[in-house]
Amino acid sequence: MAGFDAARALAQYDPGKLTIATVCSHSSLQIFHGARREGFRTLGICKGKPPRYYDAFPLGKPDAFFPVHEYADLLDHAEELRARNVVIIPHGSFVEYMGTDNYEKLQVPTYGNRHVLPWESDRVRSRQWLVGAGIRMPEVIEDPKDINRPCIVKYMGAKGGRGFFIARNYEEFKKRIDSTAKYHIQEFVLGTRYYIHYFHSPLTGDGYTLPGGGSLQMLGVDRRDESIIDEAHRLGSIYELEEMGIQPSFVVTGNFPLVMRESLLGEALDMGARVVAKAEELFGGLWGPFCLETVITDKLQFKVFEISARIVAGTNPYITGSPYSDLIAPELSTGRRIAQELALATKLGALGRVCT
Amino acid sequence: MAGFDAARALAQYDPGKLTIATVCSHSSLQIFHGARREGFRTLGICKGKPPRYYDAFPLGKPDAFFPVHEYADLLDHAEELRARNVVIIPHGSFVEYMGTDNYEKLQVPTYGNRHVLPWESDRVRSRQWLVGAGIRMPEVIEDPKDINRPCIVKYMGAKGGRGFFIARNYEEFKKRIDSTAKYHIQEFVLGTRYYIHYFHSPLTGDGYTLPGGGSLQMLGVDRRDESIIDEAHRLGSIYELEEMGIQPSFVVTGNFPLVMRESLLGEALDMGARVVAKAEELFGGLWGPFCLETVITDKLQFKVFEISARIVAGTNPYITGSPYSDLIAPELSTGRRIAQELALATKLGALGRVCT
Amino acid sequence: MAGFDAARALAQYDPGKLTIATVCSHSSLQIFHGARREGFRTLGICKGKPPRYYDAFPLGKPDAFFPVHEYADLLDHAEELRARNVVIIPHGSFVEYMGTDNYEKLQVPTYGNRHVLPWESDRVRSRQWLVGAGIRMPEVIEDPKDINRPCIVKYMGAKGGRGFFIARNYEEFKKRIDSTAKYHIQEFVLGTRYYIHYFHSPLTGDGYTLPGGGSLQMLGVDRRDESIIDEAHRLGSIYELEEMGIQPSFVVTGNFPLVMRESLLGEALDMGARVVAKAEELFGGLWGPFCLETVITDKLQFKVFEISARIVAGTNPYITGSPYSDLIAPELSTGRRIAQELALATKLGALGRVCT
Repeated sequence: MAGFDAARALAQYDPGKLTIATVCSHSSLQIFHGARREGFRTLGICKGKPPRYYDAFPLGKPDAFFPVHEYADLLDHAEELRARNVVIIPHGSFVEYMGTDNYEKLQVPTYGNRHVLPWESDRVRSRQWLVGAGIRMPEVIEDPKDINRPCIVKYMGAKGGRGFFIARNYEEFKKRIDSTAKYHIQEFVLGTRYYIHYFHSPLTGDGYTLPGGGSLQMLGVDRRDESIIDEAHRLGSIYELEEMGIQPSFVVTGNFPLVMRESLLGEALDMGARVVAKAEELFGGLWGPFCLETVITDKLQFKVFEISARIVAGTNPYITGSPYSDLIAPELSTGRRIAQELALATKLGALGRVCT
Repeated sequence: MAGFDAARALAQYDPGKLTIATVCSHSSLQIFHGARREGFRTLGICKGKPPRYYDAFPLGKPDAFFPVHEYADLLDHAEELRARNVVIIPHGSFVEYMGTDNYEKLQVPTYGNRHVLPWESDRVRSRQWLVGAGIRMPEVIEDPKDINRPCIVKYMGAKGGRGFFIARNYEEFKKRIDSTAKYHIQEFVLGTRYYIHYFHSPLTGDGYTLPGGGSLQMLGVDRRDESIIDEAHRLGSIYELEEMGIQPSFVVTGNFPLVMRESLLGEALDMGARVVAKAEELFGGLWGPFCLETVITDKLQFKVFEISARIVAGTNPYITGSPYSDLIAPELSTGRRIAQELALATKLGALGRVCT
Repeated sequence: MAGFDAARALAQYDPGKLTIATVCSHSSLQIFHGARREGFRTLGICKGKPPRYYDAFPLGKPDAFFPVHEYADLLDHAEELRARNVVIIPHGSFVEYMGTDNYEKLQVPTYGNRHVLPWESDRVRSRQWLVGAGIRMPEVIEDPKDINRPCIVKYMGAKGGRGFFIARNYEEFKKRIDSTAKYHIQEFVLGTRYYIHYFHSPLTGDGYTLPGGGSLQMLGVDRRDESIIDEAHRLGSIYELEEMGIQPSFVVTGNFPLVMRESLLGEALDMGARVVAKAEELFGGLWGPFCLETVITDKLQFKVFEISARIVAGTNPYITGSPYSDLIAPELSTGRRIAQELALATKLGALGRVCT
């Protein structure tokens, strides 16, 4: 993005030949499926040979593949991708595989605001953003000696659900900590987890409108399924497991569909709206799909433990619609909603407004 | 209802302008969505300003709102509501917000049998009803000294999933009880929970017919998701949590879709049929949507711990159909089924038969 | 099958009057629903009077019933069934109710390869098959003295989720074992369970093609819901329950829909393909629906603890499609996919290729 003018690049595009591209993983079946339904060409970026699994899911298979040796090589192919009228839809694995720096540098129009990245990936800044938006978050404990309730301790740079542990007090902390590593401590919030899928369009003025313009949708809710923690109870409590030498881990393996109480929808939407408003103030905005990862306490309060500023894999149960998107339009996935937005932006001549 | 003749009131209605109304919460999006699909006008009753969340779900938004200062004020607006050809669809929050007494007094035609309320809300009478229908229920323990297996102790008047505790013996009971409060003790049934959504129509004579007339459907099954109990195991067993000063709570935050073994469907339907038959005997019947809240033991027996005599929020995962309703008709939610029943009743001149 | 030539029997059939039959349980609503959608006649085999529950689910009700006194009596009705152009769709309960021996002897064309049965039901041979296909399985512990991590001990011939226990070491094994019974010990794999629904067609050459011919689909994923183990944590850890005299049981009561990480789909399909290839080598093939019952560890590795060589009840949440089948064709259940395959086989004159 540094020095990259997406609007200028898009001005050279043939609007009738826009190609939706993403990395072949995460939610790409959904993204390609949605893009196809809206009439777009699709391109699957892959490392090495095109993966075979798309053959089993023909409606989610891209029209063509774009194999690279390393994802970072995409930087060198920017011109070619632009020549093919490519708009990139980033997902969590896309950003992870490319690396934050490369992702920011990629000279190809990318749907969404890439300026969100430093705010999302840095714990201090993301808290500033969310708390600044009036969102309740789990408390941070600065000094392990202050652990006076169940806490989750996360090692810095821990990836993919490992490198966490739970401590109820300083003794447990000392017992479990790897003293050579940097860590971060926050309150373990008791409740039930709801991952809320939003979509913010700055281009539409109907529906749930926002003070800063545009409108907000809520397309679904899921719960992540994490190995081993979510089925560890079949063998014993996490303390009994510890006695067997087994530490809980939190590696996402899939997602469950679910719905939340209707009486919480007002607050859910309002949280989304506040997060969008604060993003506008801090770094130019947040649009397209995003997700607030919440715990609902037994006082029916949301606590948000993380934000994802793009499509989450938790939307994958809803390829042909969720109980929420069914109240908006038939068979509306997040992937399809993205494609609709790009179609609208094309029609309005506003692609430069929604890509960076 | 006291002194209110719904049939007489309905005789004054313009049958082509029937308006389906409910309180803006719980399952109202589904009720309005279903009503719209069957061509009805819809009216959202709300306390204060109309809630904004409907703007995000246009297919579930009522045509108009009916704001009141307090829900009890509805009593004073009965004439106006009748003049607008309103039929009220009660849901759990409707009854809770208005209060049982006011709900019973409301002089507006209400779908379903309001005479069920004293039988449903009173523990002794509901047990008389269900056990009288041959339903297996958890055992009641009269004297806490007799606690000889895991029991759930519920404080009288406890609301919304708090005010419960678990005790395995008298010692645990004594340790946990708030001796100033009244309580009720019943066996904690081990197994898996299935909340079965039924619909009884006294107006249709095909399908799964009942001896007393009409027919029974099973439109879906869900499981309630309760905070903190359903994810508490991520932090430890409930006994380990107690050592941390944390008591389990059972506050419903949402619902999961699921299906039960096909071999249990016969018994599930039969239970529903027996509950309807007994209701006819005891208080004039039970029709429309209702729910049996069951545990399936590892002997594949149902134990029913509660009945809800109207639409439950557990139907919300199924806005466009469940794996069960898909075997009846496409895209059939409970909300839509209610609207179909009112359309049929209108056609048959039988609105007075299904409203009280 | 012994001495039964399905192809020869099918040569006498009126291909325009093929009748799809199964036993009235398990996944029969789905099988009949799918068969009806593809235009087949349907026949419900039942013990005694036809079950009433089909009346509540008209789109899953068979056109006719075939009542028998005992399921084994079907052997004597083979000629009549063949005269009615019956093809049997076996499901888990079908095989269980008839008994393996009778099922093998039944002189009626049966969809799928009945030669799989001895390989599937015998622990040693199924391991030979799966491990031979390069599938990772839980380790077997031959001597209980070697139990050095959590293990699951299963009594021989234990049925329906009872007759299991968990032991972490030899002491626990000795404490819990019924020394009069035969048993089998294997590692308890920690992780999250995914039951993957495959469909192998030897008749189609597009999609995810296999080296041995034909193609493979993945139609869905579910998780079994087991009483009491899956909700036992609400009362305490399994060790705390043991102190109350309660042993965990694993009786399947239903199924949840879910999805897995997209990055695991490649391996999931590849496992299915290898299992099919090995089946061809060992016993003439595996086609139609089958299921690998897996645990995904926190290293994102699959471990397969069982195979089902026919339709599983875990497909029942997906009567009108799953998030995976929605990427293949609209409203495609496994039951419907079976019917489509029989329609194709009829058209190609290849019924004898897919029935035994």
